Amino acid sequence: MLDTSLSDVIQNRIDQKTKPLGALGKLEAVAHQLALIQSQGLTQPVAQIRINQPTVLVFAGDHGIADEGVSIAPSAVTQQMVLNFLAGGAGVNCFCRANQVELKVIDAGILIPVESDSPQLIVQRLGERTGNLAKEPAMTMAQVEQGIELGRKIALETIHNGSNLVMFGEMGIGNTSSAAAILAALSAGDIESCVGLGTGISQEQYRKKVALVTAGVHRAKGQAPKEILAQVGGFEIVQMVGAFLAAAEQQVPILVDGFIVTVAALVATQLQPACRELMIFAHHSQEPGHQRALEILGANPLLDLDLRLGEGTGAVLAVPLIRAAAEFYNTMASFAEAGVEVTC
Amino acid sequence: MLDTSLSDVIQNRIDQKTKPLGALGKLEAVAHQLALIQSQGLTQPVAQIRINQPTVLVFAGDHGIADEGVSIAPSAVTQQMVLNFLAGGAGVNCFCRANQVELKVIDAGILIPVESDSPQLIVQRLGERTGNLAKEPAMTMAQVEQGIELGRKIALETIHNGSNLVMFGEMGIGNTSSAAAILAALSAGDIESCVGLGTGISQEQYRKKVALVTAGVHRAKGQAPKEILAQVGGFEIVQMVGAFLAAAEQQVPILVDGFIVTVAALVATQLQPACRELMIFAHHSQEPGHQRALEILGANPLLDLDLRLGEGTGAVLAVPLIRAAAEFYNTMASFAEAGVEVTC
Repeated sequence: MLDTSLSDVIQNRIDQKTKPLGALGKLEAVAHQLALIQSQGLTQPVAQIRINQPTVLVFAGDHGIADEGVSIAPSAVTQQMVLNFLAGGAGVNCFCRANQVELKVIDAGILIPVESDSPQLIVQRLGERTGNLAKEPAMTMAQVEQGIELGRKIALETIHNGSNLVMFGEMGIGNTSSAAAILAALSAGDIESCVGLGTGISQEQYRKKVALVTAGVHRAKGQAPKEILAQVGGFEIVQMVGAFLAAAEQQVPILVDGFIVTVAALVATQLQPACRELMIFAHHSQEPGHQRALEILGANPLLDLDLRLGEGTGAVLAVPLIRAAAEFYNTMASFAEAGVEVTC
Repeated sequence: MLDTSLSDVIQNRIDQKTKPLGALGKLEAVAHQLALIQSQGLTQPVAQIRINQPTVLVFAGDHGIADEGVSIAPSAVTQQMVLNFLAGGAGVNCFCRANQVELKVIDAGILIPVESDSPQLIVQRLGERTGNLAKEPAMTMAQVEQGIELGRKIALETIHNGSNLVMFGEMGIGNTSSAAAILAALSAGDIESCVGLGTGISQEQYRKKVALVTAGVHRAKGQAPKEILAQVGGFEIVQMVGAFLAAAEQQVPILVDGFIVTVAALVATQLQPACRELMIFAHHSQEPGHQRALEILGANPLLDLDLRLGEGTGAVLAVPLIRAAAEFYNTMASFAEAGVEVTC
């Protein structure tokens, strides 16, 4: 757990800035959280919050359930989008360019491997794709353990290479079904409210998706988190769980993207509750299950832009708000410094 | 009015990007609006949206009503904050630094003029401060006309110097009272729902503020927009109205900040309805009147960060989202370019 003994001193510093008390809303909470994280082990709060080399790791994996026709696209599109990431043409690439964020793509197990010597590609495949969660376990417990280790490894490498703000994104046709099943298995309440329209399926497909997810949830419900991942998880999701655990251990803040990433965050907090303190929630997606996952985590995201793209796009879009929070903590004048009469 | 004949071609270009239809939510609407604005007079949509030298003009003015004790601070604080802007220590300065936005400060009429040769300061004073709107006209019609002209002039200068995205911010102790009175005079509905806690007054001050605003509204209600400004406006507000009119005439998009700026935007649209098409709404502030003003304008802002600072901070914080929208319009691959199977 984070040492909160400097919390009041940090809050006082924020309250002395030349603004009405609390007038910067959510940015004040972000500044407080970042200052507390970066002041661990110190006797005074850091003078400056540093945001170094923000990096998004986009994990890609394929899902056996895709054969059931619950997505708008076939599994082959996962590979095509990985190639798009490596060529710089996807949404997440655009936002990384706009916001100076670094990007790595992880093949966690996609149906058709890519041939590429791009330094942005990390290949750590758990298999070709998961089992069809509606009918069989998605993966073995050994794959779950291996996936968590591989996810940890790439997060640690990213941090050791100089990033102190990490984000995770995902790509995988069928992965909203997997995320919905994990969420429903982990939480109380009906299954249907965990299932959404994904990238835009019809009502008929939606009813089928609910039925398939329900079949998986019946096997997984009440099991331990790793067993739930084995029953209904995804290769990209288990690797993200490992990445969350490692970043949190390193006390590096994690900017959490949308539905699928938030479900991985939820699993990580079930394995290690202290993870939660390192999470900053980037945005509220249009997937209905996201709201439930956010509520369980007690999260109030920064953005609500009606996004439903995945890839880590929501997290990357929130990076300027993190930098803005750091900047006001670092350089905004206090009432005394500016000679402004204290107004509160 | 904008020529919308290229609207379908622009939408088609957005829809061919490698993402589910509509998956970038509000950013798609921004990209569409920017592309349409920058394609005026062309036979094909622009290939690239350009965002050049985003600039925030912060207008400062003092208000006679401040003597009634309806703010947490005295009028002297307006000048102290102007000095803080010029020294780079205020919230808006921090966010300008974080987001590469240029800043100018306009003395539109503050109680205590500043002594400064800063190139960031523009002095175009309409007076020392407005009359007390609860008891008397805030200014003369001649001051309204002069203020609109001065606001136009600085906006035109900013655009001629190379900015093609402008924002307006404000500072003025007492100006939420003025904005509330303008809004209540211009719109149907009760006065109380236009009045908020400003920078954080007590319940007793709040009741007094409602009574004072009500007195002003009774004189202004049903008058033409400029007469309303004369009765209950502010020097910074009338100059912003002029700036809105000029930027819209130049077909330059305007990123609209919070409550007070949105009220100025509303007055501008009453004077010239075509202004509305150039406006992008940055954020939703905590002032209750802001919601009403946004509804009248049919606006759905980008951000909701629980801000209540003013100064143009919300607009400056939204600039990275404008750049992100431009970037995806400019460089995101189409399905055909990326070799991704069309999924919608």
